[in-house]
Amino acid sequence: MSVVVSLDNSRNPPRRPTIEPLAALTAADMTRVNEVIIQRMQSPVILIPQLAGHIIAAGGKRLRPMLTLGSARLCGYQGDRHVGLAASVEFIHTATLLHDDVVDESDLRRGLATANAVWGNKSSVLVGDFLFSRSFQLMVADGSLEILAILSEAAAVIAQGEVAQLVTANDTETTEEDYLEVIRAKTAKLFAAACEIGAVVAERPKAEQAALQIFGHNLGIAFQLVDDVLDYSAQQATLGKTVGDDFREGKITLPIVLAFRSADAEQRAFWRRTLEDLEQKKGDFRRAAAMLENAGALKATLERARGYGAVARQALEVFPAGPEKVALLEAVDFAVERAY
Amino acid sequence: MSVVVSLDNSRNPPRRPTIEPLAALTAADMTRVNEVIIQRMQSPVILIPQLAGHIIAAGGKRLRPMLTLGSARLCGYQGDRHVGLAASVEFIHTATLLHDDVVDESDLRRGLATANAVWGNKSSVLVGDFLFSRSFQLMVADGSLEILAILSEAAAVIAQGEVAQLVTANDTETTEEDYLEVIRAKTAKLFAAACEIGAVVAERPKAEQAALQIFGHNLGIAFQLVDDVLDYSAQQATLGKTVGDDFREGKITLPIVLAFRSADAEQRAFWRRTLEDLEQKKGDFRRAAAMLENAGALKATLERARGYGAVARQALEVFPAGPEKVALLEAVDFAVERAY
Repeated sequence: MSVVVSLDNSRNPPRRPTIEPLAALTAADMTRVNEVIIQRMQSPVILIPQLAGHIIAAGGKRLRPMLTLGSARLCGYQGDRHVGLAASVEFIHTATLLHDDVVDESDLRRGLATANAVWGNKSSVLVGDFLFSRSFQLMVADGSLEILAILSEAAAVIAQGEVAQLVTANDTETTEEDYLEVIRAKTAKLFAAACEIGAVVAERPKAEQAALQIFGHNLGIAFQLVDDVLDYSAQQATLGKTVGDDFREGKITLPIVLAFRSADAEQRAFWRRTLEDLEQKKGDFRRAAAMLENAGALKATLERARGYGAVARQALEVFPAGPEKVALLEAVDFAVERAY
Repeated sequence: MSVVVSLDNSRNPPRRPTIEPLAALTAADMTRVNEVIIQRMQSPVILIPQLAGHIIAAGGKRLRPMLTLGSARLCGYQGDRHVGLAASVEFIHTATLLHDDVVDESDLRRGLATANAVWGNKSSVLVGDFLFSRSFQLMVADGSLEILAILSEAAAVIAQGEVAQLVTANDTETTEEDYLEVIRAKTAKLFAAACEIGAVVAERPKAEQAALQIFGHNLGIAFQLVDDVLDYSAQQATLGKTVGDDFREGKITLPIVLAFRSADAEQRAFWRRTLEDLEQKKGDFRRAAAMLENAGALKATLERARGYGAVARQALEVFPAGPEKVALLEAVDFAVERAY
């Protein structure tokens, strides 16, 4: 693993990679993205800005729009269009989050608590639809059919990935390839599109567009795999991050797939009871986390994440050195190493 | 009210207006629209074509894409683009229906039965998202930013109207203007857009584009108002159409708004119990229908529908005589008179 350090502090001990360099480089643009987001989520129907504001505020990092801004800057883009497009990317992400909040009756019986609990399924769906439409209006205002094609395809693939995940949900027989196919669609596709459109606005050659697409795609997979690990990381719990959400929902993530593969009969029975039948009792989560740790499944997942991170880093080789490249490379390291 | 008859059978007694002339004129194009719909709802994730096929088959009349086809032909359009765009319009409508299917826990407790009952909330949302994305992909393939602007704005307005309806749901104090604002957004907007884009593909002057927009808008309102009446029409029950859905859901439609306005204390208590508190017992629906009839609320709603129908008819005056105009005018009469 390599840690990117700026030349100035190369004599200091290597610091932990963070998202800060990318955040700093895109800070001025991001202020404008946030203004567009606030402005475009307004509606005389008050519930819309209320609910959208809640989820957008909770969304936090703004990683995807930051990638659009950073990619455009990496490509030497000097115009304004990346601002509206970054907002458009964030709206697609927010709409997806809202629609992910929608639950079935069976889930409600399990007592899940989401934003949905406050406003209900129907509001989550309809406000998501509104933001999704707003996203397309922003793209139309931008006027690039190429970007519209990239993002509308991304939206279709995300929805398809979400349905695929729904179909395979709670199935402990899910293979590694099944799982990767789901996260390629539901996570990596939007990361890839967010980065790719940075090259499109900058009118860079197809090779650079493809490089940023590959960068975003692999970064997205790495990001998701580390997220999967963090959900079982006791250490994170002490940092205030929620753990155990995936477990409680019976989500089959890569650590589970890998652990189940090498599990004995008793262990398989445990996974089936807790994740398929969703019969969970006190202590089960702790036991699950320990089983994943002992099976080496968390470590193996992180190794895979590191592999995808390396591909992402390599994709940027076609771009000249500069602060944007340094910041994007460190964003990869951050995505991979934040689990430690 | 005027009934359009073709010159050939002008000596026969006036026949009831139907959608048949428009359906016949657009039949060849509609076959191609259906092919595009089938082709573009495919996915390796089998649940998508399954669920989409179910709702598209149930959708029935294909009124909205038929209006796009008929409007384009009215404008003398001879190309192919209206086919993909009509499919795009139908996908937006289908996505809306699927998202309308989503229910909250409280609704489930009331025992509503929808397609949702088979596949669940989450599937309805995600397959709707997929079709919505597909709709935009079809528009992008068409390549007109003007049409993308019209339909993405329509999608945003529809979502906004649905949220507005959610907020005012089960409120017997809803005013006629409140209600009209909701149906302008959730029904009339897509009718208007479906017709307007017919003029855009045909590259007709703005005046004709505006005329078709007004035509669709007013036809949409008339159509919705008649739908509201039909939901309380005992006669329709004998024709196999379901009645009472709006009542069971406590929907405040125009007949209710008008009846509540002139209701005495006892009647208001009845409406509040059945529609606000959703406490309904055997015989309540029959009593509701009778109350609407006695208050003249069904007749008054139909009169308003006829007024909107007249505006729609008048909007077509700028177009030259011809079979397309005759068919579209009869479609208005059909929308208004089907309640008799």
